[in-house]
Amino acid sequence: MQTFFNPKSVAVIGASREPNKLGYIILSNFINSGFKNLYPVNPNADEILGKKCYKSILDVKEKVDLAVVVVPAKIVPQVLGECVKKQVPSVIIITSGFSETGEEGARLEQQLKQLIAKSKTRVIGPNCVGIYDAYSHVDTLFLSRERCGRPKKGFISFISQSGAVGSTILDVLYSKGIGISKFVSYGNGMDVNEKDLIEFMSKDKTTRVIIAYLEGLKGDGRKFLEAVKKVKKPIIVLKSGKSKKGSEAAASHTGSLAGSSKIYSAAFKQFGVIEAENWEELLDYATAFSQPLPKGNRAVIITDGGGFGVLATDEAEKCGMLLPEPSQQLKQRMLKSMPSYVSLHNPIDLTGDADAERYATALNECLASKEYDAAIVITLFQVPTLSDNVIEHIIKAKRFNKPILVCSVGSSYSEERNKKLMQSGIPVYPTPERAVRALNALIKHSKKG
Amino acid sequence: MQTFFNPKSVAVIGASREPNKLGYIILSNFINSGFKNLYPVNPNADEILGKKCYKSILDVKEKVDLAVVVVPAKIVPQVLGECVKKQVPSVIIITSGFSETGEEGARLEQQLKQLIAKSKTRVIGPNCVGIYDAYSHVDTLFLSRERCGRPKKGFISFISQSGAVGSTILDVLYSKGIGISKFVSYGNGMDVNEKDLIEFMSKDKTTRVIIAYLEGLKGDGRKFLEAVKKVKKPIIVLKSGKSKKGSEAAASHTGSLAGSSKIYSAAFKQFGVIEAENWEELLDYATAFSQPLPKGNRAVIITDGGGFGVLATDEAEKCGMLLPEPSQQLKQRMLKSMPSYVSLHNPIDLTGDADAERYATALNECLASKEYDAAIVITLFQVPTLSDNVIEHIIKAKRFNKPILVCSVGSSYSEERNKKLMQSGIPVYPTPERAVRALNALIKHSKKG
Repeated sequence: MQTFFNPKSVAVIGASREPNKLGYIILSNFINSGFKNLYPVNPNADEILGKKCYKSILDVKEKVDLAVVVVPAKIVPQVLGECVKKQVPSVIIITSGFSETGEEGARLEQQLKQLIAKSKTRVIGPNCVGIYDAYSHVDTLFLSRERCGRPKKGFISFISQSGAVGSTILDVLYSKGIGISKFVSYGNGMDVNEKDLIEFMSKDKTTRVIIAYLEGLKGDGRKFLEAVKKVKKPIIVLKSGKSKKGSEAAASHTGSLAGSSKIYSAAFKQFGVIEAENWEELLDYATAFSQPLPKGNRAVIITDGGGFGVLATDEAEKCGMLLPEPSQQLKQRMLKSMPSYVSLHNPIDLTGDADAERYATALNECLASKEYDAAIVITLFQVPTLSDNVIEHIIKAKRFNKPILVCSVGSSYSEERNKKLMQSGIPVYPTPERAVRALNALIKHSKKG
Repeated sequence: MQTFFNPKSVAVIGASREPNKLGYIILSNFINSGFKNLYPVNPNADEILGKKCYKSILDVKEKVDLAVVVVPAKIVPQVLGECVKKQVPSVIIITSGFSETGEEGARLEQQLKQLIAKSKTRVIGPNCVGIYDAYSHVDTLFLSRERCGRPKKGFISFISQSGAVGSTILDVLYSKGIGISKFVSYGNGMDVNEKDLIEFMSKDKTTRVIIAYLEGLKGDGRKFLEAVKKVKKPIIVLKSGKSKKGSEAAASHTGSLAGSSKIYSAAFKQFGVIEAENWEELLDYATAFSQPLPKGNRAVIITDGGGFGVLATDEAEKCGMLLPEPSQQLKQRMLKSMPSYVSLHNPIDLTGDADAERYATALNECLASKEYDAAIVITLFQVPTLSDNVIEHIIKAKRFNKPILVCSVGSSYSEERNKKLMQSGIPVYPTPERAVRALNALIKHSKKG
């Protein structure tokens, strides 16, 4: 599997001279990323983008670690046969038109399976966008960087059956400044499937959390769940095709049998997989794992907007989170440097004239005490009295080694401040409910042990 | 009530020369908005911001339509008494420290009620941020425009018990370029309450949809629901304080008795109020009402990303929306100008090499037919083949007089295109689920009749 993500040499089979063609975009991605040993393959060209072009991969004398295939579906079997003959360890087939299109396509895909059956060649795809690795810069996405941004280096790895869902999420991560380690779109998953990828990610050093968009399972369900059970890293799954109509749509999209949503949800729960309700949650939960795991489920909510405090409280109670009131001693300690009208229940409402120092007092006293395992900090920067010192105070509170999640939202003034927090490793959420649910994902995983 | 929103003369009682004080920000808002007849009141100043300052409102010779009060709580009774004497029809009390703080504050608030009991003076507040009217430019928000943007003119009116929730949402609306008509934060609602405001908005010419953030009801519950029942305009409510802990937090925030969430939800349903689950939905639903009401619940989903189509389908089925497959005739008409591998079920998956013309064909044929009442259009602009013509095609499809809701998300490339759609009156949502739920809000309201 390593040669998929860290190839020393790459062939692009179906490389093209036309800038709109996938075979052009993919080859130029590799050139722009600084890859040296690149072999464009196209029987009708001598040179593409300044690189010598080969009629067949068999004409390449040097060893090839990774082949990316973008030729039309009907030529794929021939090309894959040549890759096997050349003993290419890793092949990504971008081309679509296989089992997702019906019986004829399924037969063609079966043929591909037979071709690699007794070889050491492993295949990702077909019907996928392949790999983006923020560390090695492998990038087989046929989406231009202008239209679809590539995230910076980070600790999230992401597998997706759907190329469009996957690459759209990459684009959103890029725009939010959230980094990733590896992204794999594996489409029809004829060989490498979710189980293989999750096992690989679980051993990958730059991956701390694994997120997955699944329409159905490509491999054996039991084996997948057994593999997942062994993984200590958090795994967050968005399962689609849960409804009757939705599962039909999934079948014609990636040829998946979506299965019963209840069976999936029960199995996920049993094996410690965190299920996201939608793709915003997939990212909300993943970014929460920048925080240390909580030792329990007692949270304090600190806010300068009472209404947001109420909304956070509603959601916390829904999640089964505990919001204990501060003890009398803790209240006394906080009151020493706060006006008397501040509401020292939980949520702690610092009120609309809150300043940065009130936040510092509440956050430091609560997290230093043994009364709380985590903090949700709601900072509405619209409030006139709130100076930017609050950002430093929150970042400094990381020393308590307890999770801190911030809720803040607004136009550019707030966004700039949110960015500073995020760059310092504090996740920021646009609604109190989303912050609470993200903390709940941390609590769930810490229970897995 | 009109004098709250369209005053010919305004007094700011507690006006201040210090730029950080509320009494300065509010007075300068009125000056910047071009109000002429402004009367700052402050016993310790002769002039503020170039305006003659009065010791008491009773010293003002001219008629005063609106008084904004920002003096400390204990002086409010005296000041309100003077407003009554002066026969000021509309008073907004920004000051906090009343029933939300406990017994003593409740007594003080009771005193205010008695003061206006036999007068024609009406009060909004106390413990609120007051009014922002995008048409008349009344703006009593003590949040600077740098920190908290003010939305442009639009058709949404918004009432909120919480000033922070309200103004944060205003800031978000501003950043998204979504306009509003009127915003009212009414805090403890000692006089003017949700019933009065909703009745007023229901007659207001620039209001097409009413959204409300409620922690509890300030007036009589039955009267509120009877008033709501009569309103033909859509009313969308976010009710907080639904949990046990949350209702306690609501009590210490705006002195509200939150009541049982089930009773509220049942009543809302019965009286045709649309309930939002969180404040993102409040805005999602409100913006959907830029669209014509659907005549039924048969929707077509058109997408260039199969996965997003599956997610939309799951959500549609959850909402009870119908997604009928196109008839054979309709499929034939679409196939005339589409490649055979396009998936013409519902969702219609135009696949990852979709171009603008495929979108035009699918959208025009489906909406021109009698088979569909509404369309969800998922445009992932990351796809290399999709030109900006798709934007024009979607805007032109408004001629069918059926609701069109778009789902699109990504970094700046997508955002620019989303902005164009929104400026042309097409609502755009960042997830397929949110687009579907927003359409469902339209369907629900159209059933109210």
